Amino acid sequence: MKDVNMLIEALPYIKEFHHKKIMIKYGGHAMIDEAAMASTARDTVLLKYVGMDPLVVHGGGPEITRAMDKMGKEPKFIKGLRVTDEETIEIIKMVLVGKISTNIVSQICLHDGKGVGVSGKDACLIRATKKAANKVKDDETGEEELIDLGLVGEVKSINAGLLEMYTDNDLIPVISPIGVREDGTTLNLNADIVAGEIASEINAEKLIILTDVPGVLRDPKDPNSLIQKIKLDEIPKLIEEGVITGGMIPKIETCVTAIENGVQSAHIIDGRKEHSLLLEVFTTEGIGTMIYK
Amino acid sequence: MKDVNMLIEALPYIKEFHHKKIMIKYGGHAMIDEAAMASTARDTVLLKYVGMDPLVVHGGGPEITRAMDKMGKEPKFIKGLRVTDEETIEIIKMVLVGKISTNIVSQICLHDGKGVGVSGKDACLIRATKKAANKVKDDETGEEELIDLGLVGEVKSINAGLLEMYTDNDLIPVISPIGVREDGTTLNLNADIVAGEIASEINAEKLIILTDVPGVLRDPKDPNSLIQKIKLDEIPKLIEEGVITGGMIPKIETCVTAIENGVQSAHIIDGRKEHSLLLEVFTTEGIGTMIYK
Amino acid sequence: MKDVNMLIEALPYIKEFHHKKIMIKYGGHAMIDEAAMASTARDTVLLKYVGMDPLVVHGGGPEITRAMDKMGKEPKFIKGLRVTDEETIEIIKMVLVGKISTNIVSQICLHDGKGVGVSGKDACLIRATKKAANKVKDDETGEEELIDLGLVGEVKSINAGLLEMYTDNDLIPVISPIGVREDGTTLNLNADIVAGEIASEINAEKLIILTDVPGVLRDPKDPNSLIQKIKLDEIPKLIEEGVITGGMIPKIETCVTAIENGVQSAHIIDGRKEHSLLLEVFTTEGIGTMIYK
Amino acid sequence: MKDVNMLIEALPYIKEFHHKKIMIKYGGHAMIDEAAMASTARDTVLLKYVGMDPLVVHGGGPEITRAMDKMGKEPKFIKGLRVTDEETIEIIKMVLVGKISTNIVSQICLHDGKGVGVSGKDACLIRATKKAANKVKDDETGEEELIDLGLVGEVKSINAGLLEMYTDNDLIPVISPIGVREDGTTLNLNADIVAGEIASEINAEKLIILTDVPGVLRDPKDPNSLIQKIKLDEIPKLIEEGVITGGMIPKIETCVTAIENGVQSAHIIDGRKEHSLLLEVFTTEGIGTMIYK
Amino acid sequence: MKDVNMLIEALPYIKEFHHKKIMIKYGGHAMIDEAAMASTARDTVLLKYVGMDPLVVHGGGPEITRAMDKMGKEPKFIKGLRVTDEETIEIIKMVLVGKISTNIVSQICLHDGKGVGVSGKDACLIRATKKAANKVKDDETGEEELIDLGLVGEVKSINAGLLEMYTDNDLIPVISPIGVREDGTTLNLNADIVAGEIASEINAEKLIILTDVPGVLRDPKDPNSLIQKIKLDEIPKLIEEGVITGGMIPKIETCVTAIENGVQSAHIIDGRKEHSLLLEVFTTEGIGTMIYK
Amino acid sequence: MKDVNMLIEALPYIKEFHHKKIMIKYGGHAMIDEAAMASTARDTVLLKYVGMDPLVVHGGGPEITRAMDKMGKEPKFIKGLRVTDEETIEIIKMVLVGKISTNIVSQICLHDGKGVGVSGKDACLIRATKKAANKVKDDETGEEELIDLGLVGEVKSINAGLLEMYTDNDLIPVISPIGVREDGTTLNLNADIVAGEIASEINAEKLIILTDVPGVLRDPKDPNSLIQKIKLDEIPKLIEEGVITGGMIPKIETCVTAIENGVQSAHIIDGRKEHSLLLEVFTTEGIGTMIYK
Repeated sequence: MKDVNMLIEALPYIKEFHHKKIMIKYGGHAMIDEAAMASTARDTVLLKYVGMDPLVVHGGGPEITRAMDKMGKEPKFIKGLRVTDEETIEIIKMVLVGKISTNIVSQICLHDGKGVGVSGKDACLIRATKKAANKVKDDETGEEELIDLGLVGEVKSINAGLLEMYTDNDLIPVISPIGVREDGTTLNLNADIVAGEIASEINAEKLIILTDVPGVLRDPKDPNSLIQKIKLDEIPKLIEEGVITGGMIPKIETCVTAIENGVQSAHIIDGRKEHSLLLEVFTTEGIGTMIYK
Repeated sequence: MKDVNMLIEALPYIKEFHHKKIMIKYGGHAMIDEAAMASTARDTVLLKYVGMDPLVVHGGGPEITRAMDKMGKEPKFIKGLRVTDEETIEIIKMVLVGKISTNIVSQICLHDGKGVGVSGKDACLIRATKKAANKVKDDETGEEELIDLGLVGEVKSINAGLLEMYTDNDLIPVISPIGVREDGTTLNLNADIVAGEIASEINAEKLIILTDVPGVLRDPKDPNSLIQKIKLDEIPKLIEEGVITGGMIPKIETCVTAIENGVQSAHIIDGRKEHSLLLEVFTTEGIGTMIYK
Repeated sequence: MKDVNMLIEALPYIKEFHHKKIMIKYGGHAMIDEAAMASTARDTVLLKYVGMDPLVVHGGGPEITRAMDKMGKEPKFIKGLRVTDEETIEIIKMVLVGKISTNIVSQICLHDGKGVGVSGKDACLIRATKKAANKVKDDETGEEELIDLGLVGEVKSINAGLLEMYTDNDLIPVISPIGVREDGTTLNLNADIVAGEIASEINAEKLIILTDVPGVLRDPKDPNSLIQKIKLDEIPKLIEEGVITGGMIPKIETCVTAIENGVQSAHIIDGRKEHSLLLEVFTTEGIGTMIYK
Repeated sequence: MKDVNMLIEALPYIKEFHHKKIMIKYGGHAMIDEAAMASTARDTVLLKYVGMDPLVVHGGGPEITRAMDKMGKEPKFIKGLRVTDEETIEIIKMVLVGKISTNIVSQICLHDGKGVGVSGKDACLIRATKKAANKVKDDETGEEELIDLGLVGEVKSINAGLLEMYTDNDLIPVISPIGVREDGTTLNLNADIVAGEIASEINAEKLIILTDVPGVLRDPKDPNSLIQKIKLDEIPKLIEEGVITGGMIPKIETCVTAIENGVQSAHIIDGRKEHSLLLEVFTTEGIGTMIYK
Repeated sequence: MKDVNMLIEALPYIKEFHHKKIMIKYGGHAMIDEAAMASTARDTVLLKYVGMDPLVVHGGGPEITRAMDKMGKEPKFIKGLRVTDEETIEIIKMVLVGKISTNIVSQICLHDGKGVGVSGKDACLIRATKKAANKVKDDETGEEELIDLGLVGEVKSINAGLLEMYTDNDLIPVISPIGVREDGTTLNLNADIVAGEIASEINAEKLIILTDVPGVLRDPKDPNSLIQKIKLDEIPKLIEEGVITGGMIPKIETCVTAIENGVQSAHIIDGRKEHSLLLEVFTTEGIGTMIYK
Repeated sequence: MKDVNMLIEALPYIKEFHHKKIMIKYGGHAMIDEAAMASTARDTVLLKYVGMDPLVVHGGGPEITRAMDKMGKEPKFIKGLRVTDEETIEIIKMVLVGKISTNIVSQICLHDGKGVGVSGKDACLIRATKKAANKVKDDETGEEELIDLGLVGEVKSINAGLLEMYTDNDLIPVISPIGVREDGTTLNLNADIVAGEIASEINAEKLIILTDVPGVLRDPKDPNSLIQKIKLDEIPKLIEEGVITGGMIPKIETCVTAIENGVQSAHIIDGRKEHSLLLEVFTTEGIGTMIYK
């Protein structure tokens, strides 16, 4: 290498985000493929070394299903809705905290970052309440019925002080998205939402969500139709037009809430592309979709 | 209650151990029975509130076997020795970090302690090396063979600074006994030994090992033959006489090493008795066996 | 001792008052009887060791009279009102600061507490103004006359920073209730009021006044008629009904003012009963009368 | 005033003693005469304001005798030696801590210094042991007898940390020379020696002893025969020659010990002369006798 | 010296200005005459040693003209107004920062003060904007013309944090009055105004301007007609009456602004008189003119 | 830019030099050409932002000659040796401190670094002694004569604490190589040596000297004959062989001394090549010559 121009080009971003908190949601490909996870972990460590304060929230997805299969635990459905019973939450805890989180920590440490696994139960990091029962209409009788989804929760409050202890000590917290209810029981939480809530609570500069799509596409079939930047007030129209749709809607909503709570920008990027994290942080055009105020 | 005399009796101990670190190894009954774990957790929190700095290391035992059964993973033996392969260490991690540790944290938090799960991999808390292969004599051929026990390790170094961050912030670390090898792989560790090594490294005042026996018994069949105090130099004779025997030997060795490294006293107590932890700390005669210099 | 249940019962109180300031007014029996003072001092040290921040204000009473007798100084009265002249205040200072305070400090240190005598003059801890002259009606002429009580003062301001220096350094300040006037002269102060004013100023959790009565009694002749809890707004009626009467009125007023200034609860307890201090702090029903908002 | 030359002349001394500790023993005239005490207090405050850290130890002398007289307590002698019984030590405490110390604190505060009274018992500032019994020869029988002087002590250790807390908080500690024995009883101490021991323990720059003589005089009858400077090794000869004699010998010995323990210089000055303290600190020739290494 | 009364007289001032910031503008004689500069530097160091925080801003004047002469650079005038071109500002920088500032630092260090040269460009201490062009009427045509004075600026903002770093570390900053424009170019600034602006920004207690006149004189021809104190609201009248006139007007305006921004008093004193600085600070009547609110 | 690989390649260096001090000597081209200086300043700021602590020492060279020319000051020679008289040192100060240092500070600030000019006289940063007179042989008479080089000095001690204050506050000190003699006079110093001495004193990780040559060349005529790495013990041979020669010898000696005093590596690089500083720090092969132990 005889070319340091990239460093020079990165300098404005390094300056801008100096000592700023960057909340990164690991998900999709970056959670499944080992090489992808290693690469993402290394990029995260790099952010730390050039002076930012990255924090990680991870999801679980396929690993949980796989573990349940292995343990012969069949998913439970009521009226088509998946229900989290005690046995399931126990498996979720084991996979999220015991497997995925320790693996990410491992990768971060291998790249000389000081990763530390933190579950939502540690020092009551994430206090949660049980989600209200869902109303479901019986197709035959037409009557509405309340379906209790079991041990699924909603974030009530975040112990931001605990996370500051980690970042102040140059550690990179890797947060498992479970919550603790008043009575001590564990509740399963949506990882995107946890990332967004924490980003808000700790005054993060950025919320970056790693996914398996290039970002928001104007035409979902055309990967070249990426919308690079979306202003907050353009979002309702994009939903109405069907550009933002399906599983992208809750992600976008998480971004919107975070920005409304003071996060400077939220990013949905493709975790499958190498260095997508760095390209999003260190380049003007970025690589995915940025939501801003 | 109109009797505060116990508080008065406890005062000398509260003074003596003020701001001292107490390393507690949770094991046996206290790990299996939920009520026992809750009670032990509450006692641990009490130590914190009266001014000491408790740290917890937990074992795994039966939970791991149970999880392996559930996952249809059969234990692997070579020449009668159990071998830890990659699949097994993955299950161990899930059980220790994802299940047992979070459960203890839960119990501690329920009693208003600020428990935090810490695996040996967090910020490379426990660096370990692979255990040397065991020499085993083939009964038939009489030849010695080296049996590699797989992913089983020995403690190489402890990141005491990380643990001090926790105690300085009034948190109670709950440590899972796994180690990280140079190349990042996870190694299974003996929980007693981990407790002893950490106790030495952090200059703990006491090392307390919760077991399912009353302590060292002069006559194993007579629970009333408890030896309350053993001076370090009496131990070789007690082993020779067969008083200390079997599974008690490695526990005693761990105690000896800890004391030789500066821990003031080591205690083997019966976790099945209620408040055994408090009785051992706050009473002169204690409840189990104390090893001292 | 094989019973640690009292510790378990005390735990909720230990938690609740962790790092909270407890202002204790030593008076009555606890100031006269040496064993009682020793016992009270030990209980005060215990509060410190289980994590609270006790501060002591002491009274003087009989000791002052005794010293005056010894020095052949007759109390001076004008129209039946006791007057504090310069010689008297000099004796008061010697008794409070040189005798009682050092004795309490002695007892606290003997129980491994770090007691430190602090007079109201130290670094102008208590600035005071001279009390306005009392109006007294001449029985014969029916005319009102102003009687100057001499060197008796009212608290003007408290140097809370000085007291924080002591508690931050794990010292237990033992405060003598004298004040310093603008011109440097010493003024005699009411110890109960000083305790109340300081409790307010340092945001104490509790104000505990040790007396020689069981607390507020519904029927003064029946020691079993103790009122355990009085809500602030019940007090006017209790005074009206003659339940709170005589010397109890100013004590209650001190409590009321303290609570109105943010102290959580005020307690009037019987210093003659052993461990009354601990029983009041560590039990639900307490032993005396608690005033609360 | 249109002449600031004195300030300019004082500058080198102000620089040299910046943030240095100056231990001042108040004694003689400066303890009896109110104006002298006020003047000395003001000079002490001035040292503080120009950047030094003055500490005060005071003596007692005539005040104690006067108080004993008043209380009808006759001094007790055995074989011509004064004995301190319990009643006496009680009076000593009252006079030193309750009267003299508070008066000095008063004077310091009046000149905007933050004086704080500290007795040797506060947080066990001065631990002491009982002085060994004196051997006395019976004039008649010629036999030696051991006379127990009662509650008289020798300094065993100083809690320097407590004094640093005061100086770090810009307070001027005013120390009463009593000590605390292992069992908590109070012992009377020689104030000069206490000043010397503390000076050594806190690494004071100077020990200044205020007396009622001009310093060491070559000819005691000629006040103009003052010896301004004495090198440590000249002292034995001066004692031998009878220049240093009587009550001056223990004072000089205190100085010698202090210097041997690291104090830079010790000064014996005339407290009766106005501003003797300032003249000694801020002028080359000084006003009394300086002992140095 | 046997007279320390001056120290006693200075004490109230030393107390009053303890840890207060004193902004001193060096100018006139004190900048030209080496002995005067040395004397002023020593007086400044004395302020530091007796507990104040002096900061220095210096002017340039004749030194700049001399350097320009030497370098053969002729001053440039347009329509009678002096214009600062690039070559001139380069010379100004060299003289202010490289010569005058280092000389003052030298003098301060020689008197054991820790002087540090700080230019307005260091860490952007003084951000400035270019002064608007001056309107000048052509005498012949009567038309107004805008004359650009070149690299002359006005203070926009002060980096007070940088100056606090110096004073917190017991350093005496010696500030050169140049500013930095957005684009990095250097602008020449009026030293009096810089001193005033900094005094306001750092909440200085005093602003002292050293000049070559005794202060404000009621009759400029009579040096005995000095006005010692001027209340802020008397100033307009004094200007109207022609008492404050010519070059004194901008100096007074600087003082007024500083006081309006919270500086307690501003002083115009005669730097030619020895110890004028000390006499102004340490005496009631002072030596020059004091402006106050 | 869609390529962040350079960042990834730089990561190991960023990690290795995290919070390490890098002493950079600006010289040659980088001091003359404005674009080169700007580029070097930006690279220096980049080092800061990625977590290192750069410090700058600058030289003077041609600027001084130019300024002397302009001021009509002819260089003075005695027996062929240049002599620094008072007028010359005055010009040197103006150029180094007033011109070059402020220009570098300007460039650093323009790139969002917080540069601060520091002369060797500030708080006596560099104490120096006058260089001993040179012995010179008179060609004619053959006699040796001592030629006093005037105000030229040698470094005696460095105030490392001052520099730490700057780096601790995230400032980049730009140091002018002049020293202060006991009597306060300024001495001219060799900038390379100053850089080396400071690097030693502050425990710098690297000393980097920017020059106008590619490094040490095996064949001075062949720029492709660069020696990339020289071990300390190879240097004597390289000097003997004439590879290291002329002006390179003192530079190499400075490097050797620095490394012997604990600096990890010293680098001689070509300041004319763009980003030579970054290429040397962030690449394995570097761009110039590295000296190491």
